[in-house]
This record gives sequence, C-alpha cells and structure tokens, in this order.
Amino acid sequence: MPGKIALLGSTGSIGTQTLDVISRYREEFKVEVLTAYENVDLLSRQSRQFLPDSVVIGNEKHYKKLKESLRDTRVKVYAGYDAIEQVSAGSDADLVLTAIVGYSGLRSTIAAIRAGKRIALANKETLVVAGSVINNLLKESGSNIIPVDSEHSAIYQCLAGEDRNSVERITLTASGGPFLNTPAEMIKRVKPSDALKHPNWNMGDKITVDSATMMNKGMEVIEAKWLFNLDPEQIKVIIHPQSIIHSLVHFTDGSVKAQLGIPDMRIPILYALSYPRRLKSDLPRLELNKCSSFTFFEPDLKKFRNLSLAFQALQAGGNMPCIMNAANEIAVKAFLDGKIGFMQMSDVVEYTMEKDGYISSPGLESLELTDRQAREIADKFINKLLN
Amino acid sequence: MPGKIALLGSTGSIGTQTLDVISRYREEFKVEVLTAYENVDLLSRQSRQFLPDSVVIGNEKHYKKLKESLRDTRVKVYAGYDAIEQVSAGSDADLVLTAIVGYSGLRSTIAAIRAGKRIALANKETLVVAGSVINNLLKESGSNIIPVDSEHSAIYQCLAGEDRNSVERITLTASGGPFLNTPAEMIKRVKPSDALKHPNWNMGDKITVDSATMMNKGMEVIEAKWLFNLDPEQIKVIIHPQSIIHSLVHFTDGSVKAQLGIPDMRIPILYALSYPRRLKSDLPRLELNKCSSFTFFEPDLKKFRNLSLAFQALQAGGNMPCIMNAANEIAVKAFLDGKIGFMQMSDVVEYTMEKDGYISSPGLESLELTDRQAREIADKFINKLLN
Repeated sequence: MPGKIALLGSTGSIGTQTLDVISRYREEFKVEVLTAYENVDLLSRQSRQFLPDSVVIGNEKHYKKLKESLRDTRVKVYAGYDAIEQVSAGSDADLVLTAIVGYSGLRSTIAAIRAGKRIALANKETLVVAGSVINNLLKESGSNIIPVDSEHSAIYQCLAGEDRNSVERITLTASGGPFLNTPAEMIKRVKPSDALKHPNWNMGDKITVDSATMMNKGMEVIEAKWLFNLDPEQIKVIIHPQSIIHSLVHFTDGSVKAQLGIPDMRIPILYALSYPRRLKSDLPRLELNKCSSFTFFEPDLKKFRNLSLAFQALQAGGNMPCIMNAANEIAVKAFLDGKIGFMQMSDVVEYTMEKDGYISSPGLESLELTDRQAREIADKFINKLLN
Repeated sequence: MPGKIALLGSTGSIGTQTLDVISRYREEFKVEVLTAYENVDLLSRQSRQFLPDSVVIGNEKHYKKLKESLRDTRVKVYAGYDAIEQVSAGSDADLVLTAIVGYSGLRSTIAAIRAGKRIALANKETLVVAGSVINNLLKESGSNIIPVDSEHSAIYQCLAGEDRNSVERITLTASGGPFLNTPAEMIKRVKPSDALKHPNWNMGDKITVDSATMMNKGMEVIEAKWLFNLDPEQIKVIIHPQSIIHSLVHFTDGSVKAQLGIPDMRIPILYALSYPRRLKSDLPRLELNKCSSFTFFEPDLKKFRNLSLAFQALQAGGNMPCIMNAANEIAVKAFLDGKIGFMQMSDVVEYTMEKDGYISSPGLESLELTDRQAREIADKFINKLLN
C-alpha cells in the first residue's frame, strides 16, 4: 500500500523537489493533500498531475481561480490558514511533509502532530521557535519527526542502530555560503542579488540569505538540540565548503560516523518519505575520485555574527530563539527590499534579542505574542536606521 | 557480568593493543585465554597482569620456560597448535579475538566458530582463504564475526540499523602506504626497511609490507565479500592518504555513510569487544578543524599489481585467493630476507596463481593442500629467480 502524503508548501523549493521525488515513485506514494500560499498556477498544475484528495490555497483571494481551474477534477479545493491546519490534521495522510517557510508553518505542523501524523520536517521555524512545546506534543500524541534538512537527515541516518546515550556530540557542516572568503569590509556592501547566489545548494530566497549570513546554520543548531535531545555544548559547527559531508556524529568511544552525498535535497527528501526503508533511486551518485579535496575549518564568528547570536539564543532558551527568528525574518525582508545592508541584519537581530522581554518557559500563546512583539521591535529599529 | 575474552595472538601488534584496551576496562572484560607463538617473555608478563584461566605457547620448545615463569600463579599452561585450537573452542570465553597473523590463524578460528563463540576477527587469512567454508560454518553454529580491521569495522558500523538489501556498494579506503608517490622505477629498489615505514598505522611487519604493496587492501577486498555478502563489482578501493575516513557504504538511494576516526586500532578493537554497546573511551578524539584536507584518488593498478591480482583472485573464486595468499606469504618473507625485490613480490604471486591447480569449490582439506602446493611453487620460483 502506498504511503499517503500531505505536502504543505508544495510550490516552494522543497515542495517542488518533493513532488519530483514522488513522481519517480508513483506506486510507493500517494499525494493526499497539497497546499501553497499564493502560487495558484503552479498549485493547479501540481493538482492536475498528482490528483490529491484536497488542495488548499493559503491566500483566500486566489480561491476562486484555483477552484475554477480544477472544476473538471474531483479534487476538493479550500482556502485560508485554518483550512491548511484542518487538512493537515484531518486528511488520510500518514505523513505530513511541512515545507512551509517561516513562522506560518508552525501552526499546521502542530495540528498534524496533534492528529498523530508522522512529520517530515522541512520547516525550520517549528523547532527553533517552539522546540520544547513540540517535544511535549510529540510525547502526548506518539507522533515523531523525521528531518528533511540535509544536515539533520545526516545525523538521523548516522544514529540508525545506535544507542542515543553513546552520542558524545554532533558536528553540523556548513558550506559557509557565498561570502565565506569575502573580507568583512566587503560584506557590508553586498547586494541581495549577491546573497542569492549560493555555491552548492539550490534553495528558496529566505533560506539562501540565511545561508549567506549563517543564520540558517544557527537555526539548525537550535533544531538539532530538540531533534536529538542534546545540550548546547554537544553541538558544533564546522565549515566544509564542498558540502559533501552533510554532518557527523561523534560517539563516546572515539568513533565518528558521517553521512555524505552530492548536494541534492532529493536524497534527504526521499529518505524522509520512505523511512525506515531506503528506495532505489536514479539520482546522480557521489564519486569520491571526482571530488575536490574536503576541507574543514572553524567558522568566523565575528564575520558571521548571526551564528554567534543563535548560540546565545540556544543558551538562553525560553522564548529567545523565537525572538531571534522573528527579528531575523523582518531583517531578511528589509535586506531583500534594499532597506538595510547585509551586516545590519545582525544588528536588527541583536537589538531585538536585547529589547524584547525574556520568558523562560513560554507556552504557545506567549510564543505567538513574543513573535508579534519581536517583529514590531525589529521593524521600528529598521525604520530608525532608515531615518 | 564482564565479557569473557580469549585472545589468540596476544604478543603481536593487535594482541598488545587489545590488552591495552582491556586494561582500561577491567570491570567490563575478563581475559580467559592468551596465546602466542614464541614470545614467551611477553606472554608471561601479560599472563601475570591479566591472570587468564589458560595460556598457550604455540612453539612447544618454550613450554618449560613459560610454565616455570608462571608456577606461582594458578594460570594453566599449555603448548602447541592443537592446544591453541582446544582452548579457543573449550574455554569459557564468549568472544574469541583472533589476532594470529597468517594462515596458521585459520584452524583456531574454525575451532572457535564450531564451538559457537562470537569471533572478533583480526586474522585476515581466515576469510581470504576459506570465506565460503567459514560462512557455512557460521550458519551451522549460529556464531557470528565482528571485524577488527579498521576498514571492515567502518563498514560494519555504517551498516548498523540498515537493511543489507539497501547496500549498493562499499568503498574501502587505502592510505596508499609509504610508496604512494614513489615512481614505479624507484620502487624496484626499495629495501625492507623502507617498506616497514608506514605513514599512518603502527602494525606488524607482514601487514606493513602488505600495505606497501597494497596486497593488504586486496585481502581486505576479498574479506569484505564474505563479511558483507557482496559481489566483486560492489567493492571499490580508493586511495585516501590521510587515513581518517576508514571506509564507506553507498546505499541504493544515493546516500553514503562513512566511519571516521584517528588512525588508532584501539577504536575498532574496543568496538569489536564491546559490540553492540559503545563504551566511553579516553582515546584521543578526531578534531576535523585540525585535519589536513581529505583527498581521494584511484589506485594505480600498474604500480600496485598485487591489488589487481587480488581482484582477479576474487573474481576467480574457489581456491584462487588461497593460492594468492600462500604465494604472498612466501614472497613477503623472501623480500624481508633480502632475497627478492619489491616488485618481484607480485611476480611470485602472479606466477603461482597461474601455475597452481584451480578448484572451484574447495573444502578445508583441499584448501590445506592448495596452501602447501602454492608455497612450494612460490618457493621454487623464488629459487629460480635467485639463480
């Protein structure tokens, strides 16, 4: 019987790559649900190709167009955020792949966990913002999370068959992004178009900028804490510009395991969809003799202040990662809009982390409040910078 | 309750390192049996330190000296090859670590398998010579083998929690030995003292020469076939001069797993002793940021003809790996004795593989015959070279 999949965020980078994977295994997977925010044309085409039970368009103003375009099919069409939550919890799907970018992915992920669905997690914010709340919900519902991110998938794969107590620490690898070798002085002047050129991975805009500032790696550090139940001291980051070793687990006996592969998100996506099986794929293979040499070095925390801020947020705990995440979303948008410079993104995050009120054990409601407040503080700070 | 260990070949390189490991975990492991060929002084000291139930000295002429040196202890003292077989099968040990070098390790390993002991295998010849026979014995006795060799331990560790059917192929890494960058012209003139300098690993003489000719890697390829039930085409060798990645498993979905560590045999020894647990060790840790860059390239099969011959023996199957192994033991001894040159070792192996009679499904007795014949052929060939 094919695995039934709900794909939240089907028109983004992870979403389209997920459908590319599913299209290669039509007998293994059945798409039950597709959702997107506003790319109604692509969502319509995807719906015709995969004929899900239900589709949801987040932005309600596109409902009519989507409904119209699918009227000759049996696909049920809904609109709005509440509908995304409802179908992610209420569909027949066994697995919900959450590829919605940003804070808005949190609610639907929570709804799916509450419904006991297995989660293939591609939404970073879920665990960054609400890791403690999510882990409690997972315990209650008996659901579990399989990471889609290449780094966390690597850790997950290295932990197969291992006792979690024998983990000494993990190392998340980072490409270092497009500005790895750019002097700090020059980085100040980079434009959005520069930041959107990632050397190894093909990803969405927000995450590409976060890779350039290394905030993406910082968020992965926080995610790793919750996914693998680690202390902050057990998580290291190392620059590995070739992006072939996707991450490593160091065991208490001195042995180290790593997962490697070409930089292609379809490999961890396939793993998350098919776990605990591995399906035969026709994706290009890693050929070590054709690889350039693998190098490793410590990240420059002065140049990549966001990574340092993320470790601070991880240490502080409570609502601090939520503050950091909200401020960063506002900062990235301001950078992409040409309002602030590249290095100022860290100023926005740092300022907001200092100004917003700290809560040590926030529930979901106070996290939502924190998120709103942090965005306001960050926005005001950016406006001040503009004047 | 501590694991009870019989250590066959306790005075060699793997043997002494195994006792070094055990000395760090006196509450985890109890030494039941120690055996050695002729280093009676070291065997006596080891016996005083670890107080095994029984010790055996292979060379009977040393029996009296050993017996005398241990007369104030309760350690039982035996001598001769039959005694090694008997104690390896008849002791209370749960695990028999077979670190006897060369063909002579085969008989005692077989005795231990027949007695249903778990085997920690450090003797390469066991599977090279008699892989098919051994695998049948393992099935009958319900025993199993955990590899000690760093490369096979790496594969074993990467396979934890994985379905063997999802293995596409494996890559064994090779340091390339001391002559990796020596031109073929110069290699002809290397002396035994040059060949005994291995860049990364501290090992016994025979295996160090085999590393320099890459016969060691060829034998590992054949072992891997039997340990992991692979076809010849599924086993690749790649040169990785840093010896940090100890080997890799390539899965059918395009994902690759590797085991890494500092080049220290105590890590795979500890793993084999404690499997399926991992014990906390105080061995030095791998620090990626202090590593030089990792490089990989194809082995030069013209320069390292032994590796090519091993692949031919693997393809031929039957008694061919046994012929290869016997001829190589004779060739290495002749090289160390200054009788033949470095490149002539491959001439000896190749000649013997061509001359000796091929048997497609040999049992243990015909393997013993093959072994004797191959040694004679190799010896005669060397004598002809000398005249």
